[in-house]
Amino acid sequence: MSTIDFDKLRSRFHIPTRKVYLDGNSLGALPRYTQERLHQVISTEWADELVSGWNTKQWIDLPLSVGEQIAPIIGAASGTVVCCDSLSINLFKALTACLEVNEGRSLITLEDGQFPTDSYIADGLSQLLGADRCRTQSVDIAALTPETLSKSAALLLSHVDYKSGALRDMDAITAMAQSVGCLVIWDLAHSAGAIDMDLEASQVDFAVGCTYKFLNGGPGAPGFLYVAERHQEVQNPLPGWMGHARLFDFEATYEAAPGIKRFLTGTQSVLALSAVSASLSVFEGLAMQDIRARSLALTRHFITRWEQSTVLQSYAALVTPFDDAQRGSQVSLALEHAFPVSQALIADGVIVDFREPSIVRFGFSPLYNTFSDADHAIASLEAVLTSERYRLPQFQIRSTVT
Amino acid sequence: MSTIDFDKLRSRFHIPTRKVYLDGNSLGALPRYTQERLHQVISTEWADELVSGWNTKQWIDLPLSVGEQIAPIIGAASGTVVCCDSLSINLFKALTACLEVNEGRSLITLEDGQFPTDSYIADGLSQLLGADRCRTQSVDIAALTPETLSKSAALLLSHVDYKSGALRDMDAITAMAQSVGCLVIWDLAHSAGAIDMDLEASQVDFAVGCTYKFLNGGPGAPGFLYVAERHQEVQNPLPGWMGHARLFDFEATYEAAPGIKRFLTGTQSVLALSAVSASLSVFEGLAMQDIRARSLALTRHFITRWEQSTVLQSYAALVTPFDDAQRGSQVSLALEHAFPVSQALIADGVIVDFREPSIVRFGFSPLYNTFSDADHAIASLEAVLTSERYRLPQFQIRSTVT
Repeated sequence: MSTIDFDKLRSRFHIPTRKVYLDGNSLGALPRYTQERLHQVISTEWADELVSGWNTKQWIDLPLSVGEQIAPIIGAASGTVVCCDSLSINLFKALTACLEVNEGRSLITLEDGQFPTDSYIADGLSQLLGADRCRTQSVDIAALTPETLSKSAALLLSHVDYKSGALRDMDAITAMAQSVGCLVIWDLAHSAGAIDMDLEASQVDFAVGCTYKFLNGGPGAPGFLYVAERHQEVQNPLPGWMGHARLFDFEATYEAAPGIKRFLTGTQSVLALSAVSASLSVFEGLAMQDIRARSLALTRHFITRWEQSTVLQSYAALVTPFDDAQRGSQVSLALEHAFPVSQALIADGVIVDFREPSIVRFGFSPLYNTFSDADHAIASLEAVLTSERYRLPQFQIRSTVT
Repeated sequence: MSTIDFDKLRSRFHIPTRKVYLDGNSLGALPRYTQERLHQVISTEWADELVSGWNTKQWIDLPLSVGEQIAPIIGAASGTVVCCDSLSINLFKALTACLEVNEGRSLITLEDGQFPTDSYIADGLSQLLGADRCRTQSVDIAALTPETLSKSAALLLSHVDYKSGALRDMDAITAMAQSVGCLVIWDLAHSAGAIDMDLEASQVDFAVGCTYKFLNGGPGAPGFLYVAERHQEVQNPLPGWMGHARLFDFEATYEAAPGIKRFLTGTQSVLALSAVSASLSVFEGLAMQDIRARSLALTRHFITRWEQSTVLQSYAALVTPFDDAQRGSQVSLALEHAFPVSQALIADGVIVDFREPSIVRFGFSPLYNTFSDADHAIASLEAVLTSERYRLPQFQIRSTVT
């Protein structure tokens, strides 16, 4: 049984009053400690230590020390995670690493409907290296078999799909790919911090993720990269000075640092990494199994309410898998007029988001969302649909960002 | 004549008391407004707006809007600068762009002693693409002739050399390279914000820079990339979703955004970019010619003091060019025991830095350094040398970061 006091945990976050925030799968809420810690970093560290802070405040170690904080959350060994750059750029590093390890294979397999930046980066690598060295194929994940992977250098998959909220079987898929000599890169953007996983036990090769969703690192917070220890001898295709074996010797020739450090490129934002570090401290002492159980309880509660609602049964279809083992930490409903409905909900203070073409996502962050949040969201959705308030002209306007 | 009140300008920065800070060429001081503005971004924008901030607070526009703030400081046209990622990663984009524009040429020319990350990235690209598509040569900048560049796709140079502080003739070198069909990438890390320049008038092709030195964007603040309008049709080798023409349509196929936006890759830190944006507001209404004049006056004053000091004449040689037109915004002295001398100066509150093998750098940030700072530094250096205080054991210890 969980020993976590979730009310107390919620109180560690700044949650806007009069809002039901169900978009922590897009941007996590601000931990109160992060607010304090950033004030300190700015007003004492940057202001007073100035350049000495790289030493005295261990700024230089942040990409690795934050990586060490992420490791237990994703079941990674010490020395296998680095926090830096963006997910997209870390993926570029992981992809070239797979081509190096799997010399002789040039095919990268992705799933249909992969989160766009993942396929853009893979296609971009193909464009850069030429089709003889790298090409991509996209397959229906339901049709994934050893045969479809037998010529692939790497399979790139989202652990939780951003639209449907479906959770993939990391163990089984990794084993299937590796059985035919295909490496696996998992994109953990929509799972890290909400789903318990064990990258080491699953023998994952590479993983990438972001820290601004369930890890609450702040808007646009850096990405992370996991490289299994057995692959850490590969080259970083972006070998900047921060990955050099002797950074401050300013040597003319690059010599990769040992271990995960070689995957660093340029200098990283101390503000951004300090925010991530502070936010990750909220996870200290919490078991990921308990966090996962809370997440499942919240989404299960929301789904039960949807089942019980005659209004919702007729208007909204469940896209997210009903089975606990296949569900991430969000519930996606498909419905007509999904965009104006999402805008009407937001106007009611229920913060959700819309995804093309007809999905409204209700994200549950296990660290701070409550059963009452789920109840409010259901009630508000019923009201919006029955009143047809979503037909109001102000809810039809599509801005650039949705 | 300058109309800038430099005392007033200095008061806009948080300058630690009892320190003479001469390392703004490594990490710029904290503007008071940036401190305020970050507090606001954290405590009202992230905390309360949460995911809506991407729209309501224009977070999504930051890489381009900060680019627009940088543009006038470096003499770039509107729509040619983007602030994102690190200098190293932006350089990778600029290098592949040169190879694309200069199809048929594969050689990248760098100077001997180029700032390490620049040559590491260029060599890394060569490794990734293979020597037939990309190779590098390094030349003595004094021996740079049209002949040495006649087969180069690109010449990559630092505008101000990080060790010597020598300023290069952007106009003449760019014209020389282009006369033999070689493109030019300028690394502005040690010049942007201190030296007046006009990238458009000099017809520069590409430039990269960082915002944490003379632009005062904070420790590890993002890099920037300049792409001349005529080259903006090239491909980004790291085509992440932020550079897509219709980002939030989540299309399966990448279509590059028009203009400079296509050089974006992943999501950028809102905290980091907000800090840069706030710090750049200090430059508003200031003419770069006036800032440059102040920088020259400060370094000239320091050099004059060095000339007048019999102690310093016998101990320390001037490395930085004496001629104003060839001097950046730092003065580098070469001396025996340079490392322990730098440590003894720091212990005295004169913050300088050491560069291998025998250089102590005195950086002058024209926005906040004073003539009195130069006087203090000279007096302290004389005292350290004549007292031989640098021989104390505590000044001999080399930490990882120096």
